[in-house]
Amino acid sequence: MIENVRVAVVGVGNNTSALVQGLAYYRETGSLVGIHRPEIAGIGVGDVDVVTAFALSDAKVGKDLHEAVFLPPNNFPRLLPELAPSGVSIRRGLVDADGVGRIAAAIEGADVLLYSAPSGRTVTARAYAEAALAARVAFINTTSDPIARDSELLDRFTAAGVPLVGDDLASQFGTSVLHRTLLRLLEERGLTLVSSYQVNLGGTEDFRNLVVNDNTKKQSKLNAVGSDKVDMAPLGYLPQLESNKVAYFNIEAQGWGGTAVSLDLKLKVHDPSGAAGVNIDLVRIAAAARRAGRGGYPAEAAELLKSPPGTMV
Amino acid sequence: MIENVRVAVVGVGNNTSALVQGLAYYRETGSLVGIHRPEIAGIGVGDVDVVTAFALSDAKVGKDLHEAVFLPPNNFPRLLPELAPSGVSIRRGLVDADGVGRIAAAIEGADVLLYSAPSGRTVTARAYAEAALAARVAFINTTSDPIARDSELLDRFTAAGVPLVGDDLASQFGTSVLHRTLLRLLEERGLTLVSSYQVNLGGTEDFRNLVVNDNTKKQSKLNAVGSDKVDMAPLGYLPQLESNKVAYFNIEAQGWGGTAVSLDLKLKVHDPSGAAGVNIDLVRIAAAARRAGRGGYPAEAAELLKSPPGTMV
Amino acid sequence: MIENVRVAVVGVGNNTSALVQGLAYYRETGSLVGIHRPEIAGIGVGDVDVVTAFALSDAKVGKDLHEAVFLPPNNFPRLLPELAPSGVSIRRGLVDADGVGRIAAAIEGADVLLYSAPSGRTVTARAYAEAALAARVAFINTTSDPIARDSELLDRFTAAGVPLVGDDLASQFGTSVLHRTLLRLLEERGLTLVSSYQVNLGGTEDFRNLVVNDNTKKQSKLNAVGSDKVDMAPLGYLPQLESNKVAYFNIEAQGWGGTAVSLDLKLKVHDPSGAAGVNIDLVRIAAAARRAGRGGYPAEAAELLKSPPGTMV
Amino acid sequence: MIENVRVAVVGVGNNTSALVQGLAYYRETGSLVGIHRPEIAGIGVGDVDVVTAFALSDAKVGKDLHEAVFLPPNNFPRLLPELAPSGVSIRRGLVDADGVGRIAAAIEGADVLLYSAPSGRTVTARAYAEAALAARVAFINTTSDPIARDSELLDRFTAAGVPLVGDDLASQFGTSVLHRTLLRLLEERGLTLVSSYQVNLGGTEDFRNLVVNDNTKKQSKLNAVGSDKVDMAPLGYLPQLESNKVAYFNIEAQGWGGTAVSLDLKLKVHDPSGAAGVNIDLVRIAAAARRAGRGGYPAEAAELLKSPPGTMV
Repeated sequence: MIENVRVAVVGVGNNTSALVQGLAYYRETGSLVGIHRPEIAGIGVGDVDVVTAFALSDAKVGKDLHEAVFLPPNNFPRLLPELAPSGVSIRRGLVDADGVGRIAAAIEGADVLLYSAPSGRTVTARAYAEAALAARVAFINTTSDPIARDSELLDRFTAAGVPLVGDDLASQFGTSVLHRTLLRLLEERGLTLVSSYQVNLGGTEDFRNLVVNDNTKKQSKLNAVGSDKVDMAPLGYLPQLESNKVAYFNIEAQGWGGTAVSLDLKLKVHDPSGAAGVNIDLVRIAAAARRAGRGGYPAEAAELLKSPPGTMV
Repeated sequence: MIENVRVAVVGVGNNTSALVQGLAYYRETGSLVGIHRPEIAGIGVGDVDVVTAFALSDAKVGKDLHEAVFLPPNNFPRLLPELAPSGVSIRRGLVDADGVGRIAAAIEGADVLLYSAPSGRTVTARAYAEAALAARVAFINTTSDPIARDSELLDRFTAAGVPLVGDDLASQFGTSVLHRTLLRLLEERGLTLVSSYQVNLGGTEDFRNLVVNDNTKKQSKLNAVGSDKVDMAPLGYLPQLESNKVAYFNIEAQGWGGTAVSLDLKLKVHDPSGAAGVNIDLVRIAAAARRAGRGGYPAEAAELLKSPPGTMV
Repeated sequence: MIENVRVAVVGVGNNTSALVQGLAYYRETGSLVGIHRPEIAGIGVGDVDVVTAFALSDAKVGKDLHEAVFLPPNNFPRLLPELAPSGVSIRRGLVDADGVGRIAAAIEGADVLLYSAPSGRTVTARAYAEAALAARVAFINTTSDPIARDSELLDRFTAAGVPLVGDDLASQFGTSVLHRTLLRLLEERGLTLVSSYQVNLGGTEDFRNLVVNDNTKKQSKLNAVGSDKVDMAPLGYLPQLESNKVAYFNIEAQGWGGTAVSLDLKLKVHDPSGAAGVNIDLVRIAAAARRAGRGGYPAEAAELLKSPPGTMV
Repeated sequence: MIENVRVAVVGVGNNTSALVQGLAYYRETGSLVGIHRPEIAGIGVGDVDVVTAFALSDAKVGKDLHEAVFLPPNNFPRLLPELAPSGVSIRRGLVDADGVGRIAAAIEGADVLLYSAPSGRTVTARAYAEAALAARVAFINTTSDPIARDSELLDRFTAAGVPLVGDDLASQFGTSVLHRTLLRLLEERGLTLVSSYQVNLGGTEDFRNLVVNDNTKKQSKLNAVGSDKVDMAPLGYLPQLESNKVAYFNIEAQGWGGTAVSLDLKLKVHDPSGAAGVNIDLVRIAAAARRAGRGGYPAEAAELLKSPPGTMV
């Protein structure tokens, strides 16, 4: 029998709420609904435990993980009527590069350190990676900060036989993949794209942070869809959406004789669910690599990431 | 230099209007917009001529083809401000199996006989096929009547070295392929389908005929999407849509932790354009096969048909 | 203090499920959400009790009302986690005109008999009306069967001082009122309507019955919207929608210089909620009229009905 | 017979393109499509002539008005295949307060000076108003700059017997009125609003200017809809939309028993048409007031303006 995967997590936001509640949900219901891969290297969804968690907010530090995930600004919904205490008390996380040794000590015995804090704190992200390396714990960077695509750092993980997974998690069902799929279908059928746009609205704290850095995001989105005929509207932060993301697409094309083809689409999805549905796979890939003694970047993670090693920093 | 493909056509409805107007449009504009394959076996879109046409309506018989395509109930839009006379005068078509010899004589010298009449007149469809066989002209059946999937008839075409293409044209950009593509994407990403429906509305005479035989259509649509979680609403004939088809899709799914994913889509497309965009390929496939002396069913047509030979009659 | 209104109900389908569960919901939560009029003649929503109920199905007869409302084909959702027994045992209803005396005896002491069976059983509907008249209980006909607009019957209710309310309940938030409101707004602003359509989909048993009689419905819908530029698509029965109704509208218009204005709308609503939200008002209107000794048709019900007295039978 | 209304216009952007092309369109076609009021004080749509026009762009100054309206960044579509020269040569406009006398001389003989430049140039707007007052020509301010709601200025127009109309034109079919109408309908039917949002996308130069000043706009939009449960997404400038505006609305409400009601809407409309359809009314109101010797603010303009006199500056 395989030992459960032990996960330490940095950040107790919506994505961690979705992961932690989902683990309880699947254990309690026995369901496989919404699960991409029931097993990875023999590890089921129910074989993963969160054993340590770090956060910065005074309101969360010291609380039980199963209580902290419901504190604001988190707004991911409650998946189960009742959630028994986890026994994991939230520890205070890092605010800069100081404290690597403390973190390394705290995560000893874990298989994986899942870095799930907001993007944009590269110094801190790197400090956590150093702590994972020191403790010989696999490290997963879900943010857009350059960690796994820093080749010097990756070389050190590889040399030490410790897995390093990143960067920038691709959502389980994101708007880019859907938009790309539709545009590709049009092209395969011989239609000519005239114009297309996408509007993204969301209500999470993550979304609010993205809105602040909208121009960057807009550009990366364009790349993600891969057509200069596609316009991205500015992101809209709408608190009433809570943890939902809503996207509107329009595609205008031409068929035989130049006649019009138009397609309008609305997608509504819980953003943190899209993250958790991928994190559960990254955690199992990293843990399996570590147990197999494979250090560095596990190639099987590539399709789950937006900026894997080799992407321009 | 390749000689132009000479096409005789049965039926002067919207689909023939789209084909004939489109040929003029592409010649006049030099555009390739909405063209799936610029060349098939060296034959460009501009290398196809309609040289003979059969219709039943008194209003159309005797008229020039470029005039007849605008007569009611046809409602496909005008693609060019001006359309010079074609020089092809509409001939009276068959109402039953009598007159095979007359048709065979009339299509002599053509490469292809494109059968583009309404579905459901199997006896007549078969008579045209016999005429094509007698005249050694390739035959294309775009209707759901069983012609190419009648193995006895197909054997006779094969033996005679005459191509036989059919049955039941798949639209260039239909609702089934779009619905299937979206459902497949969901499945690939690990989401769980809860329910889905599709509503199809249209304003063509073809659509009106389908509405009358709705139950059959409903069933075949279900098969086309390939999921018992997909409901088809009854087809709606709305004259105001003219030659447009409008489809509404809804897909409800579950992601991580059972959270809701919902997707709503509206597609608007000119139905006859979808037919003409495929007919232009079938005509070139059939002509190329005939010129190469390949009789029977040309396998490269398979993806353009809903019920190719081998499908249950 | 006003005595509670005592209601006997015919039919234990979705509409009765919504009414009965809603009464419990408002009492338990103290909420006024979705309530059009908190008080009518001093009677609050919480001042209404269902005291007697008639059904035909063997599965329902003899069951407690709060259990029977969840039996198939009912598919209106559960509004409260728990629903204590009502103490009202379902009685067997009428299948024809026989048994008026039995019904009259059973409803004695009630203020109102709410006829909430499927439309199309006029003989039975009339028998219940006779029973109500005999027992001097106000009668409400929510179906399209001609009861209140039968002037001879109405005269007898008036003469006896017993209120008679009907016919054909207008939903609290129906598609007709929404469509009409949008078309009126366009007109007020000086836009010119080009074309418009409406598609209605639903999953209730009521909806299934309507689909069978689609032509009638189509016509009455057209009248309800009141424009010959509006097309109604055939109704679609989609079991997966359960008690939801989904409507799609499209409106194409022209503004200044003939430029295009287009409007697409999707509405999703629980059909039985729309009925219950109006039934709660009709019940209070009828009870108040009875207590005030006002027989016949209470004019204040007019806006809640599609075919009030005076409408052509 | 009434003499034609003579209009001088400031700004040759999309809104002027729509007005000028529309006047030609209605004269040529004789149509009344999209016209709110065929006559105002006996003045028909065809009784209005643009006789003078001012612009700042070097590309436009000196050109014929019917040529200049098609120059970039204008992107309002061509309404007629051919547009004969107007005989009106574009004059250079003001860049600050200098040149009032020159403008006054140029507009002598006009009935109305229509100020249709971008919002935000208050000093210049006021200079044009002074020129109109000096020339005793009625002045219309379609921008949000405070002109008519400057009580000192209004008093001077009133005293001089010259009409002053403004400020801030309300579109003929805007998103605010549509959103408000839907929310009011919900309320009238007793539904409880849970949340609602509106997303506005556009491709005009005006829209691009609004995006720059988004926060202001966002706030004024909220006021326009009049509910704190309504969120406005940031405006999106999408050049591919050209002169179209696209708005997406979502409304989530609760009906009987707290059950969900949801409504999704997409509106597509030519923004400059919405302006021209109102300008044609303001011009006739102002001209009629001037001819009747009524100075100051004509009350019948109130419903066509967002910030009439009395609104807080």
